[in-house]
Amino acid sequence: MKITTDHIHSSNKPLEISHAREFNFLAENLEKKGLNVEALIQKIQALQIAIPSWALGTGGTRFGRFSGGGEPSTLIQKIQDVGILHALNRSSDSISLHIPWDIPQDYDAILQAAAEVEISFDAVNSNTFQDQADQSLSYKFGSLANNDKSIRKLAIEHNKEVIRIGEKLGSKALTVWLADGSSFPGQHSFRKALQNTYESLLEIYQELPSDWKMLIEYKPYEPYFYSTVISDWGTSFLLANKLGDKAFTLVDLGHHLPNTNIEQIVATLMTEGKLGGFHFNDSKYGDDDLTVGSIKPYQLFLIFNELVTGFEETSNPTPAWMIDASHNLKDPMEDLLQSVEAIKLAYAQALIVDRKSLEAAQDGQDVGQGQEILQDAFRTDLRPLVRESIRQSGGAISPIQSYRDLKVRETLIKERGKDSKASGL
Amino acid sequence: MKITTDHIHSSNKPLEISHAREFNFLAENLEKKGLNVEALIQKIQALQIAIPSWALGTGGTRFGRFSGGGEPSTLIQKIQDVGILHALNRSSDSISLHIPWDIPQDYDAILQAAAEVEISFDAVNSNTFQDQADQSLSYKFGSLANNDKSIRKLAIEHNKEVIRIGEKLGSKALTVWLADGSSFPGQHSFRKALQNTYESLLEIYQELPSDWKMLIEYKPYEPYFYSTVISDWGTSFLLANKLGDKAFTLVDLGHHLPNTNIEQIVATLMTEGKLGGFHFNDSKYGDDDLTVGSIKPYQLFLIFNELVTGFEETSNPTPAWMIDASHNLKDPMEDLLQSVEAIKLAYAQALIVDRKSLEAAQDGQDVGQGQEILQDAFRTDLRPLVRESIRQSGGAISPIQSYRDLKVRETLIKERGKDSKASGL
Amino acid sequence: MKITTDHIHSSNKPLEISHAREFNFLAENLEKKGLNVEALIQKIQALQIAIPSWALGTGGTRFGRFSGGGEPSTLIQKIQDVGILHALNRSSDSISLHIPWDIPQDYDAILQAAAEVEISFDAVNSNTFQDQADQSLSYKFGSLANNDKSIRKLAIEHNKEVIRIGEKLGSKALTVWLADGSSFPGQHSFRKALQNTYESLLEIYQELPSDWKMLIEYKPYEPYFYSTVISDWGTSFLLANKLGDKAFTLVDLGHHLPNTNIEQIVATLMTEGKLGGFHFNDSKYGDDDLTVGSIKPYQLFLIFNELVTGFEETSNPTPAWMIDASHNLKDPMEDLLQSVEAIKLAYAQALIVDRKSLEAAQDGQDVGQGQEILQDAFRTDLRPLVRESIRQSGGAISPIQSYRDLKVRETLIKERGKDSKASGL
Amino acid sequence: MKITTDHIHSSNKPLEISHAREFNFLAENLEKKGLNVEALIQKIQALQIAIPSWALGTGGTRFGRFSGGGEPSTLIQKIQDVGILHALNRSSDSISLHIPWDIPQDYDAILQAAAEVEISFDAVNSNTFQDQADQSLSYKFGSLANNDKSIRKLAIEHNKEVIRIGEKLGSKALTVWLADGSSFPGQHSFRKALQNTYESLLEIYQELPSDWKMLIEYKPYEPYFYSTVISDWGTSFLLANKLGDKAFTLVDLGHHLPNTNIEQIVATLMTEGKLGGFHFNDSKYGDDDLTVGSIKPYQLFLIFNELVTGFEETSNPTPAWMIDASHNLKDPMEDLLQSVEAIKLAYAQALIVDRKSLEAAQDGQDVGQGQEILQDAFRTDLRPLVRESIRQSGGAISPIQSYRDLKVRETLIKERGKDSKASGL
Repeated sequence: MKITTDHIHSSNKPLEISHAREFNFLAENLEKKGLNVEALIQKIQALQIAIPSWALGTGGTRFGRFSGGGEPSTLIQKIQDVGILHALNRSSDSISLHIPWDIPQDYDAILQAAAEVEISFDAVNSNTFQDQADQSLSYKFGSLANNDKSIRKLAIEHNKEVIRIGEKLGSKALTVWLADGSSFPGQHSFRKALQNTYESLLEIYQELPSDWKMLIEYKPYEPYFYSTVISDWGTSFLLANKLGDKAFTLVDLGHHLPNTNIEQIVATLMTEGKLGGFHFNDSKYGDDDLTVGSIKPYQLFLIFNELVTGFEETSNPTPAWMIDASHNLKDPMEDLLQSVEAIKLAYAQALIVDRKSLEAAQDGQDVGQGQEILQDAFRTDLRPLVRESIRQSGGAISPIQSYRDLKVRETLIKERGKDSKASGL
Repeated sequence: MKITTDHIHSSNKPLEISHAREFNFLAENLEKKGLNVEALIQKIQALQIAIPSWALGTGGTRFGRFSGGGEPSTLIQKIQDVGILHALNRSSDSISLHIPWDIPQDYDAILQAAAEVEISFDAVNSNTFQDQADQSLSYKFGSLANNDKSIRKLAIEHNKEVIRIGEKLGSKALTVWLADGSSFPGQHSFRKALQNTYESLLEIYQELPSDWKMLIEYKPYEPYFYSTVISDWGTSFLLANKLGDKAFTLVDLGHHLPNTNIEQIVATLMTEGKLGGFHFNDSKYGDDDLTVGSIKPYQLFLIFNELVTGFEETSNPTPAWMIDASHNLKDPMEDLLQSVEAIKLAYAQALIVDRKSLEAAQDGQDVGQGQEILQDAFRTDLRPLVRESIRQSGGAISPIQSYRDLKVRETLIKERGKDSKASGL
Repeated sequence: MKITTDHIHSSNKPLEISHAREFNFLAENLEKKGLNVEALIQKIQALQIAIPSWALGTGGTRFGRFSGGGEPSTLIQKIQDVGILHALNRSSDSISLHIPWDIPQDYDAILQAAAEVEISFDAVNSNTFQDQADQSLSYKFGSLANNDKSIRKLAIEHNKEVIRIGEKLGSKALTVWLADGSSFPGQHSFRKALQNTYESLLEIYQELPSDWKMLIEYKPYEPYFYSTVISDWGTSFLLANKLGDKAFTLVDLGHHLPNTNIEQIVATLMTEGKLGGFHFNDSKYGDDDLTVGSIKPYQLFLIFNELVTGFEETSNPTPAWMIDASHNLKDPMEDLLQSVEAIKLAYAQALIVDRKSLEAAQDGQDVGQGQEILQDAFRTDLRPLVRESIRQSGGAISPIQSYRDLKVRETLIKERGKDSKASGL
Repeated sequence: MKITTDHIHSSNKPLEISHAREFNFLAENLEKKGLNVEALIQKIQALQIAIPSWALGTGGTRFGRFSGGGEPSTLIQKIQDVGILHALNRSSDSISLHIPWDIPQDYDAILQAAAEVEISFDAVNSNTFQDQADQSLSYKFGSLANNDKSIRKLAIEHNKEVIRIGEKLGSKALTVWLADGSSFPGQHSFRKALQNTYESLLEIYQELPSDWKMLIEYKPYEPYFYSTVISDWGTSFLLANKLGDKAFTLVDLGHHLPNTNIEQIVATLMTEGKLGGFHFNDSKYGDDDLTVGSIKPYQLFLIFNELVTGFEETSNPTPAWMIDASHNLKDPMEDLLQSVEAIKLAYAQALIVDRKSLEAAQDGQDVGQGQEILQDAFRTDLRPLVRESIRQSGGAISPIQSYRDLKVRETLIKERGKDSKASGL
């Protein structure tokens, strides 16, 4: 299935009048506050969030998985699914591949399929947390951090291979999520595991093309339950600093201990010029991988508030944006549309924060006023603005409604079958 | 493989002198404190912890599973594995089955296999958190709590079937872990889900044989990540109270929010006569399902301290004891031996607490002294006492060492093959 | 200082046109969705949140307190402060006293002062977590839970005294926050502490006038750091059930372990008819006592969503509403205005949830749609509706702005002095 | 009161035979394992833990404080109290002062008082989280991080003053616990607060004598409840790295989010040579400041296991050791004796870990064996070894029992009065 301009027009038609009324009222309000609506729209349009190839199928837990239907079973189908999403919301112009789940066989065909739906290739992701069928040595007790040199070598080579694949596709970053850790005190030496990891990353880093970035993810626990080698931003930052200018920290919203102030981490990393990218999702307990904005929308806004501040006040390079969620219960594509909308909404809210007044309130120790200013931005209903930005980009006023109206999933099931399943988690 | 008396004797031989020296020294110390060592040994011997059938194979996470070898692939093999454990530590004289993973085909053969290794059948466990291959309706959005009456009916019937299976095997309890919950606000009605659950449990309860118990487990999250219907002890207790005298709360040590005081929950439930059973494991973050005592041994002791207090001061019936862990990295059987040892050690420590002095310290508001008394029991090295209790029961002085010396795993791999895998999680 | 109708009019004047424009647009939108705006306004007006007498002064932590100025130093001044708040937002028509911080000396004068500012007396609060200067026995090691009968008796008598004071003022509820607990394993017996507490509460309960309620608060930790006797909703509910029909559970939003699903607790308690009241505040880490809605506004909405559902679907009596925060950094009165606004906003959002569609989505297992419906209500900017409801009640369109424009704090400092301090925490 | 050699001898007398029997048995066991008992004793003796001056009085919470009696009301009395502790356990040969609570008036008298009880002066602590009576500007909204330059200057000067005081007393380190943070989103700029903090610390650092260290503490929350400027080890480490070779991170065990793996942080900091010191205490929920080892003794052991490993494998300088607890319920001096004993016990356990076997188990991926080795060390009852090390140093076999037998508190009450209170928290 492919979404055409006609599809968009026909599904936008019945919403146009109501949307115009709401947008015009909002635009007037914003202009009154001295905001440039046109500029806001351009910024919102420019924010493009990559879709990970593994997010297009139904996810699960260790207790089971309840599949949906019509899932993409090949890389080209995954690209086509992202194409559908992008046609609808004009906000996801790239896909992020996960190797070895998505090793391209025919690069020309892959690149052509992507070009057809105006999709490029974002960061490539390595995987050393699972053994592949034909693998000579096991990652059961660690990969890049393993004390066994031959296992480390295997994992290093895999990462280099991922870079080579990415190069052929036009990717510009390697994301390393190193699951390595321990589940019991005494299982390994913290010191050696960290040292091994640094040395392994260094070997990979040296292979990195000059215009690439290495994004180092951190996570406190799972799949190991006592320690993770790269457990927090401090460890990732320490490694990125040692590795060099192309190494950065990647923040996954679900990878924090309870009550962590994530927005402060974002601010600190940007101050140091080391924020490399984001994995967006939401969570209540752990790495729950829920739809972005579904649990803590205010936190999401506060994070974007730091990002927008950082864009203005620091020289941190633009981070890579990606969703990383697990769609256990919802239609994955619909879930992704909800996530992207939540991200854009939070970004829009952050853009309208009255920063001058905020700074004045802060300088005047006016704590109540600081809160009022942030909440005013958050409370303002900016959905019409986000919708307008998508509409002007040629997308659907209400991507989710269009997705349903156009019967995308039903069509995909017809095309691919009810039992078609995506590879990955 | 079967462990014989000769196996035990030969592996005990080299340890006997050293053990006797340590035990005699300890026994003298304990007698000096006024403790009856013979009585302690009998109590420790009497504590028998059931082994769940699913714990005999390698577990995993949603990110992958790294299997071991020689795992039991049939129910009879699982029973034989428990038989090996019991022969070694004389502390696990029963197995707890999980339906439908372990539906018996030939009851006579099963019962005979169990009798051969002196194993009986503990609580049976129902499973409505996974769909079976041939299932007409899906549990994806809930089972006993589902708003759809026909799905509830399916789940109720399954539980009744589990009771019937248990009856044929001599079980006396049904454990219900209801995974039902929601991952997003708005997914279901808390009120209806609770009401549906109560009504479903009531139907099952009415089918319960008169000498059976229903054990209701609780858990705050996973596999759903916003809410679980039976999320905490309060909800389980509320349901157990409404259902009647045969319904009880079951405590799984890993099913609590961060920092929960589990020992207080144990004390409260026993005060109310509603503590039905235990799933032992250990954890640092969530439901990590680690080896018992591997992370928080002092908490384990404090829990047993409440249990021993409760045995003396309340009329709560003896709870069902079971391990419920996931053995992702260690040999499952060795892991189970470690867990049982940790449980017995904590029990022994709780038994030697000087309760009279503790009560006096409490009455005198002597907070420091209260701590000294508990820590004295915990700090005392009671391993020789636990070893002696097993030795006198005909088991191995050091079950784990014997397990290794007797090359149990190697033999099982030879017998069953390297790729033999257990059903279950 | 007293806020007059003139004050209100003059401060509303410059906001009227802009407010009318925004309200009219919103009202049109809401009516289009089939909502009755007039009815919404009446419901929002009817929600009155009591102000605790101790919240009118600057709070602190164990590390220090940084006082503001012009704080009320007498009970009458506290009543006047609530009068000012109520004149501004017409949403706080009662005060909740804390004994012994606010023991009335001259009841007639107190009642008259309250009548003058149209304030009545909400639940009275007992305090057995501090020793008073002249106290014969200490609560250091517990009060109602203490193993020492004479200390329990002292605490019971205090609670009875609080009831008598409340009766003279027209209160209809006693709130018991029992801080009793332990900081070390072994300090006290969980079982005895619970049993003592029950018996103490029973004695107090028997003294309760027939038209009164007893509200039993719970809290997991602080001021004790190992256990609290009434640590969670389950324990409070257990006690309330044993005590009788007039006993209820009170939920303080800050009194939960990390990640607790509070809205589910609300739903469960209402299902059982045992939700007695609320202490509103917000928190990120523990009992942080921050301004309502300042950290987790979506959670606040979800809680009100359960409340509104419960009002419709259960026979739970209307709960007592109260703020319980600590104003360490902001002007306490401004902080209270922010809190009340946040509460009313969350309530308004919950009122516009399309419950019929939500139920349909839930019955159809349409998880994505359930989220859309809730978020639509939350994302809608209902501030004009709340402002209109206050305006129609004779209050200020923007109470906080009026508070500042009218220079309330400056006037109070002039009247009472810069060093005037409130009693309490 | 002063503890004399006679006091020690007389209180040791009745314990000697029993102690000798236990120690000899243990020593034999340890020697059998190849351990050098004499060397162990020397190491345990060498571990000296500083006592903070503020820990000698009863602590409290924001809800109240229940004082004890006979507390030291002058700095000399505080030194004498530490002298008593040191005479009893020969393990606390220094005191750590907190300025301005303990500003010395007469240095000669202070130094002489300290010399009399063989006490020296450990790290000095600055305090910018409270305003002093005569303070020109307030720290209410921050000190070293404050955006107001004059407030920063005040706080910087205070720290310099603390260094000068420390120099006169022979201190060699300045501990900075910066409480600065925010309680509400929007209150301050994360970026500016961090930048201000760095610049303020740099000014102080430049004043640091060449043989001094600066120890930078971190804490996630309290007294501010949304963010703390130096919130985690990563931030402290970042600052210490920027400041230079004399700046280090200080770990307070209670200053972590739920479930943090503290032992891993210790290992990482030592690997980087940046672990500067420790504040020992224990906690279940937050910064509970409970007696060391009273809640999580196994975690304490695991931390010492990393310390001992780090001593052997890294070039990290020896950290400063200090207790930092709040004695709300117990006699502070008894509490400190318990804490020191718990620390020494954990250290002893870590010293007997069979590191060679552990390394072999780790290299062989023998996870079960790694656990066995650590738990063997932890389970071994080493109290006789710690007692012997104190006895050989001239201290009491059982310091706590001697403290009680010698009626220290009763004597202090007689000398100082029942209402004598310590300054500080």
